[in-house]
Amino acid sequence: MAHINLPEGLPGIRGPMAFRPETTKPLNELAEVLLRSENSLSRGDRELIATYISYLNDCFFCQNAHGGIAQHYLECDISFIDDVKRDKDNAKISPKLKALLTIAASVQQGGKHVTTEQVAKAKLLGATDLEIHDTVLIAAAFCMFNRYVDGLNTWAPQDRMFYINRAKDRAEEGYANYDPHH
Amino acid sequence: MAHINLPEGLPGIRGPMAFRPETTKPLNELAEVLLRSENSLSRGDRELIATYISYLNDCFFCQNAHGGIAQHYLECDISFIDDVKRDKDNAKISPKLKALLTIAASVQQGGKHVTTEQVAKAKLLGATDLEIHDTVLIAAAFCMFNRYVDGLNTWAPQDRMFYINRAKDRAEEGYANYDPHH
Repeated sequence: MAHINLPEGLPGIRGPMAFRPETTKPLNELAEVLLRSENSLSRGDRELIATYISYLNDCFFCQNAHGGIAQHYLECDISFIDDVKRDKDNAKISPKLKALLTIAASVQQGGKHVTTEQVAKAKLLGATDLEIHDTVLIAAAFCMFNRYVDGLNTWAPQDRMFYINRAKDRAEEGYANYDPHH
Repeated sequence: MAHINLPEGLPGIRGPMAFRPETTKPLNELAEVLLRSENSLSRGDRELIATYISYLNDCFFCQNAHGGIAQHYLECDISFIDDVKRDKDNAKISPKLKALLTIAASVQQGGKHVTTEQVAKAKLLGATDLEIHDTVLIAAAFCMFNRYVDGLNTWAPQDRMFYINRAKDRAEEGYANYDPHH
């Protein structure tokens, strides 16, 4: 049961988002800019960074909700997403994305864990300043979203197919007009 | 030196905020709602929660910028802010605020660290569902802001008086119309 009295039947972040529309608006606008707006990093890669951080933070709802959307954009099997979570360095992703995920993993541990060497490597592999900025902020933002979801002990469906089946609709819906009651 | 090429001379979060106005807008709107909008928790108490989390995350810029603003609102000495950081349970704050800071500290460790007992105690001491929600989200949001500031290795003035001297203007400026170039 959630720690506070949230609207019933809404999975994960949708409960607190329906409870507090005033904070929901900027949270969704942030997700929209970071994950969906025009960017040299694809939507799939950005959702993968979000999924990876949510996995490191052990947030079941976020890692499956965003993992499903990443899978939809990347047109891959869910086992590919699981490969990245388990062992990104040997997963079939670009060296640049691996370097960005390394930076993201450092952010998850704490901002000061990001090293000059990690950033230099990402730049050498073609990452721009904007891509590094957005990687850091996506990782930091999911350290917030994950804590928001689990800190209030929200309810989440345990069947992973729930998230996979919803992913296409969620991807099309986007975040800016996200209706927590759906 | 910051990990990416940020506008020069802007302390802490102001560098990346000037670099990326598209993400700055929702970040500032979130801070405005959480820390300044109408609430049964005072602005001073909310800034104190933000300061405490920034201290736990060892973010020098945020703990001093928000510590200064907390001091301004609470009309206290900076040593009072330091007392709360060092030993909140023996600081001269209300039992309810102590219980909310305990929840906030759990969020900082990870959402799942928040316990039913911690929440029950806060409620017993008069905390409402909205106050608990906002405490969790302020703590989670500063886990983001702190990582954003330190993950990009931004520059921050080391003299604490810099923050104390600016606090009144920063409090009056607010977050919604925050100009990172000032």
